[in-house]
Amino acid sequence: MKKKNNSKNSKANGIFFLKAKYLDIKTGHPWIVIINEEDGRRFGIRPGDELVVKWKEKQTEIAVDTTRSLVKKGEIGVFRDIISRYRIKQGEFLELKLAGHAPSLKIIHKKLNRKKLSYKEMHSLISDIAKHRINDLELAFFIASAFDEKNFSKEEIYYLTKAISETGEMIKFGKVTADKHSIGGIPGNRVSPIIVPIVASYGITIPKTSSRAITSAAGTADTMEVLAPVGLPLKKIKKVVKETNACLIWGGALRLAPADDRFIKITRRLGLEPYSKMVASIMSKQVATGINHLVIDMPIGPTAKISNTKDIQFVKNLFLYLSERFNIKIKIISQKTMGPIGRGIGPCLEARDVMRVLQQKKNRPKDLEKKSIQLAGDLLELVGKVKKGKGKKLALKNLQSRNALKKMQEIIKAQGGDSKIDSEKIPLGKISYKLKSSQNGFVRSIHNKNLNKICGLLGTPLTKEAGIYLNKSIGEKVKKEDVLCTFYTDSEQRLILAKHALQKLELYKIS
Amino acid sequence: MKKKNNSKNSKANGIFFLKAKYLDIKTGHPWIVIINEEDGRRFGIRPGDELVVKWKEKQTEIAVDTTRSLVKKGEIGVFRDIISRYRIKQGEFLELKLAGHAPSLKIIHKKLNRKKLSYKEMHSLISDIAKHRINDLELAFFIASAFDEKNFSKEEIYYLTKAISETGEMIKFGKVTADKHSIGGIPGNRVSPIIVPIVASYGITIPKTSSRAITSAAGTADTMEVLAPVGLPLKKIKKVVKETNACLIWGGALRLAPADDRFIKITRRLGLEPYSKMVASIMSKQVATGINHLVIDMPIGPTAKISNTKDIQFVKNLFLYLSERFNIKIKIISQKTMGPIGRGIGPCLEARDVMRVLQQKKNRPKDLEKKSIQLAGDLLELVGKVKKGKGKKLALKNLQSRNALKKMQEIIKAQGGDSKIDSEKIPLGKISYKLKSSQNGFVRSIHNKNLNKICGLLGTPLTKEAGIYLNKSIGEKVKKEDVLCTFYTDSEQRLILAKHALQKLELYKIS
Repeated sequence: MKKKNNSKNSKANGIFFLKAKYLDIKTGHPWIVIINEEDGRRFGIRPGDELVVKWKEKQTEIAVDTTRSLVKKGEIGVFRDIISRYRIKQGEFLELKLAGHAPSLKIIHKKLNRKKLSYKEMHSLISDIAKHRINDLELAFFIASAFDEKNFSKEEIYYLTKAISETGEMIKFGKVTADKHSIGGIPGNRVSPIIVPIVASYGITIPKTSSRAITSAAGTADTMEVLAPVGLPLKKIKKVVKETNACLIWGGALRLAPADDRFIKITRRLGLEPYSKMVASIMSKQVATGINHLVIDMPIGPTAKISNTKDIQFVKNLFLYLSERFNIKIKIISQKTMGPIGRGIGPCLEARDVMRVLQQKKNRPKDLEKKSIQLAGDLLELVGKVKKGKGKKLALKNLQSRNALKKMQEIIKAQGGDSKIDSEKIPLGKISYKLKSSQNGFVRSIHNKNLNKICGLLGTPLTKEAGIYLNKSIGEKVKKEDVLCTFYTDSEQRLILAKHALQKLELYKIS
Repeated sequence: MKKKNNSKNSKANGIFFLKAKYLDIKTGHPWIVIINEEDGRRFGIRPGDELVVKWKEKQTEIAVDTTRSLVKKGEIGVFRDIISRYRIKQGEFLELKLAGHAPSLKIIHKKLNRKKLSYKEMHSLISDIAKHRINDLELAFFIASAFDEKNFSKEEIYYLTKAISETGEMIKFGKVTADKHSIGGIPGNRVSPIIVPIVASYGITIPKTSSRAITSAAGTADTMEVLAPVGLPLKKIKKVVKETNACLIWGGALRLAPADDRFIKITRRLGLEPYSKMVASIMSKQVATGINHLVIDMPIGPTAKISNTKDIQFVKNLFLYLSERFNIKIKIISQKTMGPIGRGIGPCLEARDVMRVLQQKKNRPKDLEKKSIQLAGDLLELVGKVKKGKGKKLALKNLQSRNALKKMQEIIKAQGGDSKIDSEKIPLGKISYKLKSSQNGFVRSIHNKNLNKICGLLGTPLTKEAGIYLNKSIGEKVKKEDVLCTFYTDSEQRLILAKHALQKLELYKIS
């Protein structure tokens, strides 16, 4: 534990010490500490300044608020977010210093002025982002600079990807490792928790790290978390992969790409992300986990994340370029997709769809099953398990034999979940609302982006039980007064917002 | 006052009421309220969500933190920043609602995707920024989109300027009004408080609104505030201008351009601003105050805000374009400037220089005087007070006769300051440090940007007494151990930071 404030020492190097005091506040966003106004005057610190905070081996930068009474002179108020993240103890002395501008801020300036960055510059910036030496606002400027694709060369995106993976944990799971990654935007496209057990059931190592939702209703991690913990420590993950040659975990807890975790938080709030950052984000985690065989599922459609051919080509080229630089075998599948896949949108509803497929229930969504088999087949071919053209058949075999289900139960159990869970026992939000059709006809399309937006208003992805169940899907016949879909949420407030949004955001096209 | 929570009503429209409780926290940055976790669950609100807060006629959006104990169920904790800004009363009921994404967020998306905006779109976005319906992070993305000059057409910058002025107060002071505006970046370039009294002493209406420092050590408003209050209400300003046909006030208090005030806060933290935003910011305030004769002082040099000829041409063209669209007579003066102007850098030190010139003290900075006379002369010519080529002589006349000083004393008195203040009585920071020369030679240059950075570390512009006095200026002879300049601050911490920065940031070039 740190020694108490030695005021002579303090003046010589700009460092001072304050005693941690817990404050019962949860911000859910930027990190903040509170000091007494008198200490603020004494140390020349004003509300909104940033402090470098050190304790034990750890260090971070935190913005400071001031108070006259909430904490006393000599104390520093620490919010619940920081306590739970960093395990600071009440009464512990924290070493503090006014933070100057991070030197890498000038690298952001350079990028805003459209100058090229070297690898050294990119690494120093990404490292400062990972260490919270660059604040959210500064970070937003860096992300914004990537929206113009001409501002980042392929080489720079390679640097970005490399720096993101190198500033996090690097793990090696085996010689031949496989992964599949879907580009979000298509609600309900929860193929990973089906593909992983199929591929793993053939002895292939497939350590699936996934992210939480960025702009969609649920990410694979959000969905898998309904079935088992996904925020496992590295040691536990290695054990899971050793036992089952697979896992389905959240990459963020692993700190595989801490800089990218911060990118995701920012772009989630903006509701928009540059393509180059998206590709770098995906590839950096492949690199960090030593993946060398990769299938990319890139749905394309009028309301998908990627909708025009120019963007598709840009993203494809970038994947191909990066996989070559990183020596990864890649296959990119782009399929036209007119609406969501499966019936459930939202973590619990999607987990139910997944389990319905693996348990081969009669009410399983056939489109989700079909797509999973195809992608699992592609992956089995890519790793050389089977000849080209024979993958799909092999995938289907272990799904129907329940070998894939057995593998999924092993994974759920190894990660600490209830392996006996039945699809129909997964809980849904207690407040619900049925949207009815005002006409007869056929469902021509379902608006993906609006579906995601309304799910967001209902509380996804943080509220797992929230979401939308599609009682009617594309191509199905509808009569007036038929239930088109069902909203689920845990809050009247959120239901009101969602119903209100329906006035502007069309979900179903029926004619 | 609002009625108390009617829970039936609440469920129908998503609105609920909580009772304001003062919380002794000052953030200095984003606005935050705190609610009890139980209310959070009840209303479906999580830490980091944004709420629309209404009371009396007012409305704003504020981020929410949660607590288990700091505020009780039914209460809402309001921070000191908000109380002082909005005068919310303890115990007052606030009307609350979960904020959806502001519709204008999609206009920011559009700009990030490099699409053109119509005036209607620009106005709706700028209006939402002015009303705090767009948060700081979203705003950062919009500002970032302006760094690529190709992303905003001249027409769009005109829209931006028009929207900024129209979403604030619009004032008319007279038929013929004059103004001069300097583009920052040159430390000590405090010509306005000298030009305004000179021009006003000839009966010209010159209502000078100025900004606080963005990336520099002091803005005109920061400097003038040393001499008199600058945050006057509109009614008072009109009285000052009626009495003295001039004023020297801070535009921000007037809410002439509330959207621009938010831009400035963000770019100040980033330490960088796009040129197009800078020009829009300047012109919007001219438009809002009905200025129709304008002299722009645009210093150019290797370390000035604008340093290369391409940028100079871009900024000049933009000024000319906008002044034509807004029907403003303009003259742009670009002079090569190799270092700071005057001797003092920082609000108090600059105010001392200004008063030394107006009081015609022997120790007055001659370069500052010369430049002020030239610009005042240009302005007198532009409004037609004197023939071309005769302005400088006229300006000098009223400076030497002390008519300008008399006018300045009138202005200071009308704004509520001490009109008898002597230049040598202006207070400076109690902690000081003399930087000495390590060699003999001549001062070849002084690094403007580094000067600003070190002043920032010393506490400018918020700490008025902080800054740097240049004992030696460009072209002057220096002997080893001579004092080059003197640092002033109010905090040992800040002095340490500034001295530390000297290792990397060169101030003087001597040879």
